[in-house]
Amino acid sequence: MSKHVLAQNQYGKAENRIVKVTRKGGDGSWHEIRDLNVSVALRGEFRDVHLTGDNANCLPTDTTKNTVYAFGKEHGIESPEAFGILLARHFVSSQAPIREAQIRIEEFAWERIPVPTRKEQHSFVRKGQEVRTAQITYSETTGLQVVSGLKELTVMNSTDSEFHGYIKDEYTTLQEAYDRILATKVTARWAHSALAADDAGHDWDRSYRKVRKHLLEAFAETYSYSLQQTLHQMAERVLDHCPRVNEVRLNLPNKHHFLVDLEPFGLGNDHEVYFAADRMYGLIEGTVHRDGVQPVIATSDWITA
Amino acid sequence: MSKHVLAQNQYGKAENRIVKVTRKGGDGSWHEIRDLNVSVALRGEFRDVHLTGDNANCLPTDTTKNTVYAFGKEHGIESPEAFGILLARHFVSSQAPIREAQIRIEEFAWERIPVPTRKEQHSFVRKGQEVRTAQITYSETTGLQVVSGLKELTVMNSTDSEFHGYIKDEYTTLQEAYDRILATKVTARWAHSALAADDAGHDWDRSYRKVRKHLLEAFAETYSYSLQQTLHQMAERVLDHCPRVNEVRLNLPNKHHFLVDLEPFGLGNDHEVYFAADRMYGLIEGTVHRDGVQPVIATSDWITA
Amino acid sequence: MSKHVLAQNQYGKAENRIVKVTRKGGDGSWHEIRDLNVSVALRGEFRDVHLTGDNANCLPTDTTKNTVYAFGKEHGIESPEAFGILLARHFVSSQAPIREAQIRIEEFAWERIPVPTRKEQHSFVRKGQEVRTAQITYSETTGLQVVSGLKELTVMNSTDSEFHGYIKDEYTTLQEAYDRILATKVTARWAHSALAADDAGHDWDRSYRKVRKHLLEAFAETYSYSLQQTLHQMAERVLDHCPRVNEVRLNLPNKHHFLVDLEPFGLGNDHEVYFAADRMYGLIEGTVHRDGVQPVIATSDWITA
Amino acid sequence: MSKHVLAQNQYGKAENRIVKVTRKGGDGSWHEIRDLNVSVALRGEFRDVHLTGDNANCLPTDTTKNTVYAFGKEHGIESPEAFGILLARHFVSSQAPIREAQIRIEEFAWERIPVPTRKEQHSFVRKGQEVRTAQITYSETTGLQVVSGLKELTVMNSTDSEFHGYIKDEYTTLQEAYDRILATKVTARWAHSALAADDAGHDWDRSYRKVRKHLLEAFAETYSYSLQQTLHQMAERVLDHCPRVNEVRLNLPNKHHFLVDLEPFGLGNDHEVYFAADRMYGLIEGTVHRDGVQPVIATSDWITA
Repeated sequence: MSKHVLAQNQYGKAENRIVKVTRKGGDGSWHEIRDLNVSVALRGEFRDVHLTGDNANCLPTDTTKNTVYAFGKEHGIESPEAFGILLARHFVSSQAPIREAQIRIEEFAWERIPVPTRKEQHSFVRKGQEVRTAQITYSETTGLQVVSGLKELTVMNSTDSEFHGYIKDEYTTLQEAYDRILATKVTARWAHSALAADDAGHDWDRSYRKVRKHLLEAFAETYSYSLQQTLHQMAERVLDHCPRVNEVRLNLPNKHHFLVDLEPFGLGNDHEVYFAADRMYGLIEGTVHRDGVQPVIATSDWITA
Repeated sequence: MSKHVLAQNQYGKAENRIVKVTRKGGDGSWHEIRDLNVSVALRGEFRDVHLTGDNANCLPTDTTKNTVYAFGKEHGIESPEAFGILLARHFVSSQAPIREAQIRIEEFAWERIPVPTRKEQHSFVRKGQEVRTAQITYSETTGLQVVSGLKELTVMNSTDSEFHGYIKDEYTTLQEAYDRILATKVTARWAHSALAADDAGHDWDRSYRKVRKHLLEAFAETYSYSLQQTLHQMAERVLDHCPRVNEVRLNLPNKHHFLVDLEPFGLGNDHEVYFAADRMYGLIEGTVHRDGVQPVIATSDWITA
Repeated sequence: MSKHVLAQNQYGKAENRIVKVTRKGGDGSWHEIRDLNVSVALRGEFRDVHLTGDNANCLPTDTTKNTVYAFGKEHGIESPEAFGILLARHFVSSQAPIREAQIRIEEFAWERIPVPTRKEQHSFVRKGQEVRTAQITYSETTGLQVVSGLKELTVMNSTDSEFHGYIKDEYTTLQEAYDRILATKVTARWAHSALAADDAGHDWDRSYRKVRKHLLEAFAETYSYSLQQTLHQMAERVLDHCPRVNEVRLNLPNKHHFLVDLEPFGLGNDHEVYFAADRMYGLIEGTVHRDGVQPVIATSDWITA
Repeated sequence: MSKHVLAQNQYGKAENRIVKVTRKGGDGSWHEIRDLNVSVALRGEFRDVHLTGDNANCLPTDTTKNTVYAFGKEHGIESPEAFGILLARHFVSSQAPIREAQIRIEEFAWERIPVPTRKEQHSFVRKGQEVRTAQITYSETTGLQVVSGLKELTVMNSTDSEFHGYIKDEYTTLQEAYDRILATKVTARWAHSALAADDAGHDWDRSYRKVRKHLLEAFAETYSYSLQQTLHQMAERVLDHCPRVNEVRLNLPNKHHFLVDLEPFGLGNDHEVYFAADRMYGLIEGTVHRDGVQPVIATSDWITA
């Protein structure tokens, strides 16, 4: 017996790569595909599994994998969120020891390769821009929570960004900037209201396109005095336009573009030639939520003191 | 003015790569190096930075970078933890708007290239095994918290692992296993007691070596009925032997090694030839802590409901 | 003095990340960007640099980096190929010891974020699909050689692929396939004729778009009996439609999609649910060139015996 | 029929991950493991496979995978080189259309976790330093060629490196250095003589350890005036001490460590605090071989003009 306390624990099969082909049209020659990476995590009554080697309460991770593929066939994949909701509910409702299930999904987008000469359409090229994400948590006690998101969406404004008026201490050497490139690789997550999560008819794909559009537009249209300000505008814009989104969290690395000093070569450089740096980088993170709502999106490695 | 609430937010310069050379011996020909990747995150009164473009409370991320390098010179790098404590305290104590600072550090270990023919020693080869980590959080209100860790430590038992007696549902096809390879890539974090964190003389390097040793030994010595059980043994062992460690969290991907079916070729395979798979993989995570202690290590992307 | 022979050697600065902003429109509010990763390799009379520590013939790699940025300002970046030609010629013509220069370039494509409400256009989102590549070699003796290319272009046909009629030996267990997914991540390189390389007015961007289009169309339109056959059709199509391209080399990993066996769950799987595997993978490589032309594109790690 | 010429082509299964457990001691409780990543490439009479969809000459890549695992059982894995020789000879000798086979292997090293309390030894931790490589080519016409190597071996001298006396042109700004850090991540390949390759009793593991030792020692002991000079010394040392090695090729990225300017903070920096940069980086490559020997190791993406 343990002298110590087993606290939060979870297990499951991670990164189940599933591609679903759906044939449409009268003769099935119009193909549609969904390409997901599905991770399962189960929480519940697993004390004996850890302490005594008794696996009676343990649904094998292999079974969770099988379930992902079988559900792809049985229920189809309408959207990452809808698919995750089905899976999360299934694990909790089918096995007593499982009290909560969290499904995390990445979706890779494809677009068609146009083949004008034929009716059959089954050729695709991976879009390769952002990765869409979804995290669905279903708990016996607290119900359903759906957090959608995206990552690896790289954006740049080649002007309309300044940075000045900041604290100068004894370690400050940074020159104030009145015209700089602002670039970042967006990781965004947004939590849906219970209304949306529990609405069987919610159009998750449409919701995704809408949030993505507002994130991009807010980034482009904000005249920025700091990446923090841009972050805030992006989150605000989503909350303003998407009534069923309650909370937005953004993780924005500042992809620095440094103006190259060309003076040694007798050349000017009026915001033309930049060096795109990798590391170190500024990292700006923040959550904005509706008033009266409890934020639910995990902050990055936050220690709850 | 925002209609919404700005909640948890933080910013700073991430991944400052610093190498510190210290010359020892009478003539300085005995070199020692520490090789760190230091990330800074500041939390505090940054509402205006986000809302109005007023940067009066903003210490630039560039300054936080400069501080890392200047502190390397001014104070040296005794250990990742000691260095992080210095930095975290500095940011909070030197600027009023900064209420909390979190320093995250990766350390890359090097060992000497033996050159028996000379007294001078300044040649090194990167050890390349695990990466040591440290996360130091200093808050104006709650004080100091130190979480040490390691990642990318890959271990394997080529026998003494079984897995059976688990739930079988309609999606279960896994065969019970009575002799299998158990392999994982360990990510571990352990939280130190306030006693250790606040002890200026604490030997963090010695503490690190001790925890690492017990993690490895517990993995090797546990006859395992599940990776959960191994996880629990590893955490227990650390708590048993390291009185100033209060809590251990482990993240253990199950690096599956599948016995290859060689029957089609007229060959047996008595636990000899394995296929080492990449994806999908089981993922087992858990926290064990001393009784009466509040766990502080963030769980992975946990949604606090 | 060395008792041995110093054979092929080269050096230079690799991975210079340069972003060039060009302002157009009467007021310069219409921005265009090119985003390159430029690597320089110099070959020539560097024997003493290696043998005696005499650097008199060594142009520092740091200088080659400076030259990339200065040329970005002085000459602009019309295309990766045109920029590489300028650089390669410069190094060889400006320093006697340098007999040959090879410039390798990756280009990252961006598209505009539409902001209908304003005339100024300076907001971009990284396209994120394939990476465009170019390799320009200029030699004092053999002149100019231009190889264009792309990588990381992932494509899939969800049907119209078969594989059967192959050799069966004692280690063969593969079942013949009459309807399978064919997916690959295309790396392509194509060598231009001297006519194209030496034509100062050659439109490299147009040429790139054309080759890319034919690669995609050939992949989509080929009813495939092997990935080798698809490779051959892709190369042929480019040679057929692009008279100034002399040679095409393709590197096509077979991104296997395995039909999941759902029978244990009482479910059929008529080419609907696939597992997308990572490793191991088939790897198909080949060169096709015009008759009478000497192939110049390096094969992958080929040992010339 | 093709109007064009099908030139160099090859195919096979890449990245077959195989782990072999060998039980020793009277009761088999002393385990030894070898952990390889094996890639197969076949060359030969594959014209019809590409042109007509006739696969009669095509041994499936799946079969080449099966062969790797079956050979692991049938023949064991004495060393990467010995295993690769067996496989390469097999493919060429067993199927008429296959004229040449190239096997490329990566080996991941493990060391034991010491468990003093028990006789059974089956616990390992991955060493994680360099990756050992081997490339074995067997051709019907030209016989056997064995190239061994290593990669990802990161080394550093914290002094005894200078760089000056180089060309200064109009783009040169680099300051001469009389004491700098020299660090690189070594990729090395070395070709064995036919005598070694054809010697069934050749001890490939011993040979590997010896070359590795001399590479490290030469790096450490060379007082360097350029990375080129260090490269040359490393290659020379191997040729001097390993009579059955005919040729060495090294690829040495210059992992720049820049001395941080701490003057703005009123601090000196006498070669103590460095910034370890990622990109851009110098890249130095070169081949040294015995006199009278034809170099066989592929240079990186060399265009044969």
